[in-house]
Amino acid sequence: MAITFYWGSGSPFSWRVLLALAHKRLPYESHVLHLDQQEHQSPQMLKMNPRGRVPVLKDGDYVVFESVAVLYYLDMKYPQPPIFGTSPEEAGVIMRVICEFQSYAEPSLQKITSAIFQDRVAEDIDALTDAMHVVGREARTIEGRLSKEEWIVGERYSATDMVIFPWIQLLRRALDRSGAAELGARFLLMERNYPALARWIHRIESLPGYERTYPPHWRDQSLP
Amino acid sequence: MAITFYWGSGSPFSWRVLLALAHKRLPYESHVLHLDQQEHQSPQMLKMNPRGRVPVLKDGDYVVFESVAVLYYLDMKYPQPPIFGTSPEEAGVIMRVICEFQSYAEPSLQKITSAIFQDRVAEDIDALTDAMHVVGREARTIEGRLSKEEWIVGERYSATDMVIFPWIQLLRRALDRSGAAELGARFLLMERNYPALARWIHRIESLPGYERTYPPHWRDQSLP
Repeated sequence: MAITFYWGSGSPFSWRVLLALAHKRLPYESHVLHLDQQEHQSPQMLKMNPRGRVPVLKDGDYVVFESVAVLYYLDMKYPQPPIFGTSPEEAGVIMRVICEFQSYAEPSLQKITSAIFQDRVAEDIDALTDAMHVVGREARTIEGRLSKEEWIVGERYSATDMVIFPWIQLLRRALDRSGAAELGARFLLMERNYPALARWIHRIESLPGYERTYPPHWRDQSLP
Repeated sequence: MAITFYWGSGSPFSWRVLLALAHKRLPYESHVLHLDQQEHQSPQMLKMNPRGRVPVLKDGDYVVFESVAVLYYLDMKYPQPPIFGTSPEEAGVIMRVICEFQSYAEPSLQKITSAIFQDRVAEDIDALTDAMHVVGREARTIEGRLSKEEWIVGERYSATDMVIFPWIQLLRRALDRSGAAELGARFLLMERNYPALARWIHRIESLPGYERTYPPHWRDQSLP
């Protein structure tokens, strides 16, 4: 069957799926939607996902959305190489760390990155500083895992890495903005403060097919 | 291996796992923790889950937490009967509807139930009314699915039903409180407004082993 993938440049949820498609070396037809022109809310897209969100993956006649569900479908349908583990125990940890990231890190990451991209840092600095503390704490836990293993769970690049990596990249990009200097000081010195996390980022950036997953509009430094 | 399960009475996250254990007819040693006495934060519990949250499942030496990860582990380890589908396509929908519920319904359900149990309805009535609208919209989507099938995804009782059911029960219990009358009017007339959802609740309540999953302290009507 032929895979068609609808996504948004810079959407961390979309990027997860692109990483999985690259890792599994699955051919796909790529549709980058212009989110600023509401292309994800077009009648054609709403027919596939009534919530009008990306990513959406179509495989033949089958449609799936919600990034973790897409990763899971791809792993069930195209099992090699596995990204949800090779034993029940490993599968449990992979899913557990994904759930923890979604519950404990993602809300703060969402708050910080949208405030920065919408130029609302100054007016909400206290809440954002708190959010950065949460992110820092979660990053230290991941740093601890990565100082012992090459990947976040077990010996293999897994769905957990794919779920977390795009958010770290988006956060770094956001914190690099001039208005975010006070928030980002600690986190941006990644090589010094999170050396294992920094090595893990380079490891993923060096994977075959990574270039095609990189948000196209990020290459143009003038865009958010 | 022997399963030990640590949980809290009335915790919807714990209840999900109890439903899975009952459905798979797995024997387990049950430890109901007194959350009001912070038993989930004891040194023994923190050693298993540093976040000090329930549910926690121990299977031999293996420990897993975060309710969806526990369901997933149980299904990988004890595949019969399956709760994450029998085809990649079905697995994708099961996971997708779980992700949608977590993203779009759970935050509002959490807001409503904690406000009611902490007697904060009046002071926050506008935000809670909005949250009830969100819940009502999500409930109508589920009602739509259940008016065509007996279970939320496909022909079988699945992890999706187990994830959603405890929250519906907790919501109904909360809305039944005297202070919540204005919020609950529409939702509590479930047989009239959500007839398929009401039948689905009775269907789950009639499953073998259901009684053992029911929050023990709910039998005492004076407790929250």
